[in-house]
Amino acid sequence: MPVTLALRPPMPPERHLNVIQELLDDLHDRYAGVNEGRVADYIPELAKACPDDFGIVIATASGRLYQKGITDKPFTIQSVSKPFIYALGLKTLSADLMASKIDVEPSGDAFNAISLDEQTGKPRNPMINAGAIAASAQLCLADPDGAERTMLDYFTDLAGHPLGIDEAVYLSEKHTGHRNRAIGHLLRNFGIIDSDPEPALDLYFRQCAIAVTCRDLAVMGATLACQGRNPFTGAQPLTPEICVRVLALMGTCGMYDFAGQWLYDVGIPAKSGVAGGVMAVIPGRLGIATYSPPLDVYGNSVRGVAVCRDLSREVGLSLFNQYAQPDATIRRSYRGSQRTSRRWRSRREQERLAPLRDLIRIIHVQGVLDFAGIEQLAAEFMKLPADVRVVILDLAHVTECPVESSYLLDRQLCALEDREVEILLSRAGQLPLATDRDWDISRRVSAYEHLDSALEAAENMLLERQGEAGPEEDAAAGEQATRSFLDQLAPAHRRLLLDLMTLRSFCPGDVVIQQGSQGDELFLVRTGSYNIAIDLTSSDGLSQTTRLATFGPGTCFGEISFIAGTTRSADIVALEAGECWVLHRRAFDTLRQSDPEVVIDLLQALTCDLGQKLAQTSIQLTQMEHY
Amino acid sequence: MPVTLALRPPMPPERHLNVIQELLDDLHDRYAGVNEGRVADYIPELAKACPDDFGIVIATASGRLYQKGITDKPFTIQSVSKPFIYALGLKTLSADLMASKIDVEPSGDAFNAISLDEQTGKPRNPMINAGAIAASAQLCLADPDGAERTMLDYFTDLAGHPLGIDEAVYLSEKHTGHRNRAIGHLLRNFGIIDSDPEPALDLYFRQCAIAVTCRDLAVMGATLACQGRNPFTGAQPLTPEICVRVLALMGTCGMYDFAGQWLYDVGIPAKSGVAGGVMAVIPGRLGIATYSPPLDVYGNSVRGVAVCRDLSREVGLSLFNQYAQPDATIRRSYRGSQRTSRRWRSRREQERLAPLRDLIRIIHVQGVLDFAGIEQLAAEFMKLPADVRVVILDLAHVTECPVESSYLLDRQLCALEDREVEILLSRAGQLPLATDRDWDISRRVSAYEHLDSALEAAENMLLERQGEAGPEEDAAAGEQATRSFLDQLAPAHRRLLLDLMTLRSFCPGDVVIQQGSQGDELFLVRTGSYNIAIDLTSSDGLSQTTRLATFGPGTCFGEISFIAGTTRSADIVALEAGECWVLHRRAFDTLRQSDPEVVIDLLQALTCDLGQKLAQTSIQLTQMEHY
Repeated sequence: MPVTLALRPPMPPERHLNVIQELLDDLHDRYAGVNEGRVADYIPELAKACPDDFGIVIATASGRLYQKGITDKPFTIQSVSKPFIYALGLKTLSADLMASKIDVEPSGDAFNAISLDEQTGKPRNPMINAGAIAASAQLCLADPDGAERTMLDYFTDLAGHPLGIDEAVYLSEKHTGHRNRAIGHLLRNFGIIDSDPEPALDLYFRQCAIAVTCRDLAVMGATLACQGRNPFTGAQPLTPEICVRVLALMGTCGMYDFAGQWLYDVGIPAKSGVAGGVMAVIPGRLGIATYSPPLDVYGNSVRGVAVCRDLSREVGLSLFNQYAQPDATIRRSYRGSQRTSRRWRSRREQERLAPLRDLIRIIHVQGVLDFAGIEQLAAEFMKLPADVRVVILDLAHVTECPVESSYLLDRQLCALEDREVEILLSRAGQLPLATDRDWDISRRVSAYEHLDSALEAAENMLLERQGEAGPEEDAAAGEQATRSFLDQLAPAHRRLLLDLMTLRSFCPGDVVIQQGSQGDELFLVRTGSYNIAIDLTSSDGLSQTTRLATFGPGTCFGEISFIAGTTRSADIVALEAGECWVLHRRAFDTLRQSDPEVVIDLLQALTCDLGQKLAQTSIQLTQMEHY
Repeated sequence: MPVTLALRPPMPPERHLNVIQELLDDLHDRYAGVNEGRVADYIPELAKACPDDFGIVIATASGRLYQKGITDKPFTIQSVSKPFIYALGLKTLSADLMASKIDVEPSGDAFNAISLDEQTGKPRNPMINAGAIAASAQLCLADPDGAERTMLDYFTDLAGHPLGIDEAVYLSEKHTGHRNRAIGHLLRNFGIIDSDPEPALDLYFRQCAIAVTCRDLAVMGATLACQGRNPFTGAQPLTPEICVRVLALMGTCGMYDFAGQWLYDVGIPAKSGVAGGVMAVIPGRLGIATYSPPLDVYGNSVRGVAVCRDLSREVGLSLFNQYAQPDATIRRSYRGSQRTSRRWRSRREQERLAPLRDLIRIIHVQGVLDFAGIEQLAAEFMKLPADVRVVILDLAHVTECPVESSYLLDRQLCALEDREVEILLSRAGQLPLATDRDWDISRRVSAYEHLDSALEAAENMLLERQGEAGPEEDAAAGEQATRSFLDQLAPAHRRLLLDLMTLRSFCPGDVVIQQGSQGDELFLVRTGSYNIAIDLTSSDGLSQTTRLATFGPGTCFGEISFIAGTTRSADIVALEAGECWVLHRRAFDTLRQSDPEVVIDLLQALTCDLGQKLAQTSIQLTQMEHY
């Protein structure tokens, strides 16, 4: 019994309908009044920033934005460009080249420290100035004329709209960047830069002066969260492999002088810039950005650090805070007798199928088929009863199948096939089951657009294996099958009815019954298959035509509006060449007067037939509801 | 159309049915022949280890084990105890105390380096010997007599069975542990240890000498992966908060002298011990352990490092490799007209409900309701049409609702209620929606055991709001409702039938129809509700009784075996006091002779009624199948 009402949590007086927006508002309120930290003033352009400016944006992997405060005011990206510049090097050059020029260790030094390895001269990591200058040098060397254009196009893809450079900040940094120029020459001295460092320094000053908004940074963060795919535009400026590496660097070297403390306390890969931006990434989920110019002694935005810390603690966003989902990959798994296809079959076929149905297993898989997902699927296969001969793997709710899993999945399916289990995929849709290797699951394994058609194929397969012809080729058995419906009637009644019916032939595609027409005829299938389809509207308003049922030999259709005298509610179409016995209303009405007992016998048979179908359908619906 | 067969990937000659096991075998084969590294020999006991011993175990969050090689041979845990000892300090003492004694920074030094902060004397992190000795000192101080017992009980919970100490290794380490004794005295010198360091050192030597197997380490890793809950035993030796911190430490300080490189290359929190064990954790998913005594120059097992690296690269197990699952939390969301309860209603009630159905919205939620999940749910609410008055939130497939989400969820539901939307929870089951704060979602919001009962409640709610009495109290309208079924018949036929029927009363719980009895009666509901239930068997073999349908005023039941002359296939039970008109087969048979037109009329009405129910049920089933 429902238990209703009681306490409600205390609520702020002004309420948002969306609790995420409300959370952002709360966070903004909490820190808007904090006056700690100092705006960067090593160049006049940065010193102009307003210390009260404060914005927070969350961008989700589904492409939604939540914003509060100053979120569309441009400021310079500064060091938030660093992970992206390193990623650009990994993308356009190579991981080996980048590794030969720059280490990936937290420096333990201040952001503008020189931090070069004493022996090799390699910058300790790409998140400090020396590392970014070294990365810029490689980009300039590879493409002296095009590096800046490539860089800006790339940032445009990351943010989802064209970004430009704040020329005033650029010039100011260029003219006062003595320390960075010193770093450039030291790198030249160690051979990390092979030629004049000035072009590299120029590209460095320009990348730092790219103008972004808080919203831009959140979108760029979401692009890293989504393995390099911008969830707002669909552009893919980075590969998953590069994102994994860049996020690791942001985790250890992005924020604090003290790498361990940030991961220990906050656990969110993040990068800050001296203009006040902070970009944080929850891999697979969110990009988060804050804008607030006052900086702490480490050069990180005071409010930005506070917001990241609170989000980690209060809503559990640490990277290390992953919830176990035991066996969540298996949406459902059940025996074939719990689910039949939409093909109505004669009693004889039903009886033949009944003992075979449990040789079919239906497994619905969902979510990301990552390593843990494949493991869950493999474990599910291990539990299959030994007599299972057909497995239908429904993939409609798989959201992603990474290449490495595609390989494992294929190996797993092959192992099952070696045990003489037939595998049918249903609704694999646009899953990237084709890999870039030499094989392709969907080329080898039978794939069906609908679960229903996979089920019908499995049923037909079992009937065929049983040594008799499948239903489609069962022309000879048709007569017998048809009689099996009429067998419910007394023999004299049956003969009388058959005399009144006419045999009609259909070609594939013939409309046997037209929606809206008068229901004057009752059909008994002799041979062939006849389909009734409906238009389903999904929750997003899209319409899809789907079969509601198929009538095979020995079944009857068209009875409802025939009996009720109403118009037809849907089309029925012949799938292949076939014949039906047709009873016209005139003959029925005549019979009603002359031989009411025959009509009663027929109506009783129809009632029983419908009752049986209703029971079967209701039980299936109930079973589905309870998964 | 299905496209079948083609290439298959190359397969090893001997095949496992489980691809995960096969992967483990492959990994084992790949590195079993590698002869790099040296067995630790600083004490004779460790030098006895066999360099060829090699085991790999994966323990999953679902409580499954995969093993290959030497997986049940005991060896000493050594430094793999360190994250757990620090966690024990966090658990039994406090985070502040531990932070005051030990830093959390990667040291950049070798595992046995002294690595104390120059000013404070604090060990750089808990993963080096100095940190573990400092942690042991706090445990000894707090409970001088019980510390070892507490520690062993705790390790027993972590591994899922009693663990003991290898006394030979313990004594050997105790007698030769000069360097560690020096560290103890240095810590005493800095005041990190407040008294004689010998008890702390003794506890330290004993923790390092705990005997474990490779399988034990995998289970302990899985316990960390599952937020402190041992997935094999259900014991909860650690809290989620502590696990988050310990995993962060393993990520930055667990394996390499160079913290950044491990996260950058492998991205898996891990800890190694000099006896050859490595324990790695995929948060939320897996514990992985290897045993292979030969060590590299950093003191990490050569084969263990190689296995971790390959798993990260080949099957995508890096912490930073998280796949986006856009809106995977919303399993389905659809309008009320796409789903009706199992209560069959009279035509009149159906007509009243029809225009109201879309005021209901059904949302099925799945997976972990973490922050991203709540965001997806909030966004789904934002999309609701403005006229929606009832939201049914089906939680059957929610696997976890963390406390912080429970708070957000409740705020979100309150915001919706403020907009005058009624919320019904269905199948919330054992979800921890009750929090430790002052409120409890399930105390305030109506909660139903089944989706079906929530749907019926929503329908009744709408009928009541429409200004007429709900179906349960609709006694006066009963007569009219009953007539509405018979209205399909000619008036003279109706009168004749009613004269032949007898009115029968039922009390709540009365068995109206008994399974197995002869189907001699047809029932027309005048008042009350009558339930037909079936036993559903789930895939795990459990049986559950569930309603297949409820018959309300104006509907008829019992027709199928009445017409077919068969026995009843299920019980039908009165839910409340009520009355039915009953037609007995004798009366029907008499009528068949005397007035066949009345029988034909009745059979036609039954055919139409069943046909309509079949169409409605089939459409619902088809809709459900296509989500």
